[in-house]
Amino acid sequence: MEKGAQLYEGKAKKIYATDDDQVVWIEYKDSATAFNGVKKAEIAGKGRLNNEITSLIFEKLKEKGIESHFIKRISETEQLVKKVTIVPLETVVRNTAAGSFSARLGVEEGTKLSRPIVEFYYKDDALGDPLLTDDHIEVLELATKEEKELIKEKALQVNEVLSSLFAELNIKLIDFKLEFGKDAEGNILLADEISPDTCRLWDAETNQKLDKDVFRRDLGNLTDVYEIILAKLGGSQNV
Amino acid sequence: MEKGAQLYEGKAKKIYATDDDQVVWIEYKDSATAFNGVKKAEIAGKGRLNNEITSLIFEKLKEKGIESHFIKRISETEQLVKKVTIVPLETVVRNTAAGSFSARLGVEEGTKLSRPIVEFYYKDDALGDPLLTDDHIEVLELATKEEKELIKEKALQVNEVLSSLFAELNIKLIDFKLEFGKDAEGNILLADEISPDTCRLWDAETNQKLDKDVFRRDLGNLTDVYEIILAKLGGSQNV
Ligand SMILES: Nc1ncnc2c1ncn2[C@@H]1O[C@H](COP(=O)(O)OP(=O)(O)O)[C@@H](O)[C@H]1O
Ligand SMILES: Nc1ncnc2c1ncn2[C@@H]1O[C@H](COP(=O)(O)OP(=O)(O)O)[C@@H](O)[C@H]1O
Ligand SMILES: [Mg+2]
Ligand SMILES: [Mg+2]
Repeated sequence: MEKGAQLYEGKAKKIYATDDDQVVWIEYKDSATAFNGVKKAEIAGKGRLNNEITSLIFEKLKEKGIESHFIKRISETEQLVKKVTIVPLETVVRNTAAGSFSARLGVEEGTKLSRPIVEFYYKDDALGDPLLTDDHIEVLELATKEEKELIKEKALQVNEVLSSLFAELNIKLIDFKLEFGKDAEGNILLADEISPDTCRLWDAETNQKLDKDVFRRDLGNLTDVYEIILAKLGGSQNV
Repeated sequence: MEKGAQLYEGKAKKIYATDDDQVVWIEYKDSATAFNGVKKAEIAGKGRLNNEITSLIFEKLKEKGIESHFIKRISETEQLVKKVTIVPLETVVRNTAAGSFSARLGVEEGTKLSRPIVEFYYKDDALGDPLLTDDHIEVLELATKEEKELIKEKALQVNEVLSSLFAELNIKLIDFKLEFGKDAEGNILLADEISPDTCRLWDAETNQKLDKDVFRRDLGNLTDVYEIILAKLGGSQNV
């Protein structure tokens, strides 16, 4: 597989074309950003960690029957994935109140919700990724009702699998963000990344935060906790 | 009917008990507030205007078969209404993009939506009335799924009636906010007020704003435009 022109540079990854027009080459960067890019840092090793963690998680999802764009990890910081057209929705699943949910709605962080909930945010940096209702998604034509329902269903399936996976590792999956895209045949496919950048992961006993909140809230060394997650998932031991 | 103790003072109205425990006495104040109370002013005559406009609108809704808490206007600034326990949802119906919808979602003010939409906000001043999804309403137990659906249905009925009513007066109903409550028997009843404080009303030809945006955006004299609405609705002519 040949690496082609850079198609896009995001906050955490660069996307390159390949000689197969249905495949893109993702390079994970060492950048950390939070609060819609307001807080930024370069953190050596973060790209490698998220690349490997995401790869392991997409493989584990596949074992449980959940398809994604993931094809293959090809270097410490790179992977090949199926090219999709990203649906402009950030799909958030929440099991426990935290972060913006707690702040906006006045629910104490750590409060277990009576059931998992799915939220959609408009993937639009200029607007600051605003929360959307079902009606917003329809009238803005961000997705059809059927696509939205399918995404919701898939997100809850991912939650089932990941919650048990992390529970076995003595970690609570508090919430996480997914992105979905449409492949060449128009199928909705799980895409982007699943890493401590996009999940809240708490140690089940101590509630220690093992995710990007360490960066957002200045709680310590980010790569130390990402290494813990990688090691627990059975990844390469650079600790 | 005897006026009893003050039960509550809000931003726009005071609520008093009466000798009938199923009836409350509402006094409309001359206060104008916007941006969750950050901008404030006393505007002589506003209480009278909103009291009369709300009374006329609830009467017109009743003629069209839509019940509300409204019983009777008893003075320039006072009315009697059925006492309810307010459901902590601000129910917003939108026909045309404006205000926070336009700002949050990047849709130009004045863009007609493909269909009317209903939004729910958490009626909580301390939290700044955050937007809610259906899942939020359920897990926070702000209303049952059935209550929420009923409120949505009623809100859309109100929209049908008010949109035609205002269209006949050469006014576009852009959006509006409703509150619903539960009466002694647990029935969901339309409550609070429907006035230029709670509706966006634009002159159908000139798009002149005939509502609280005149105050929010310093576009002129508030009572002048409220008088226009009152006169068009056939109310007392103090112009
Ligand atoms: N399979 C894919 N095909 C095409 N684009 C993708 C795919 N997976 C993820 N992307 C997109 O790659 C971009 C780069 O990722 P990232 O750096 O996280 O961007 P952002 O700053 O938008 O979060 C994002 O816009 C993401 O939606
Ligand atoms: N029929 C009713 N019974 C009891 N309370 C009501 C009724 N109608 C409206 N209310 C409540 O009266 C309060 C006073 O109104 P307002 O001054 O507009 O308050 P706010 O500052 O909360 O908007 C509000 O909390 C409103 O929900
Ligand atoms: Mg991203
Ligand atoms: Mg009010």
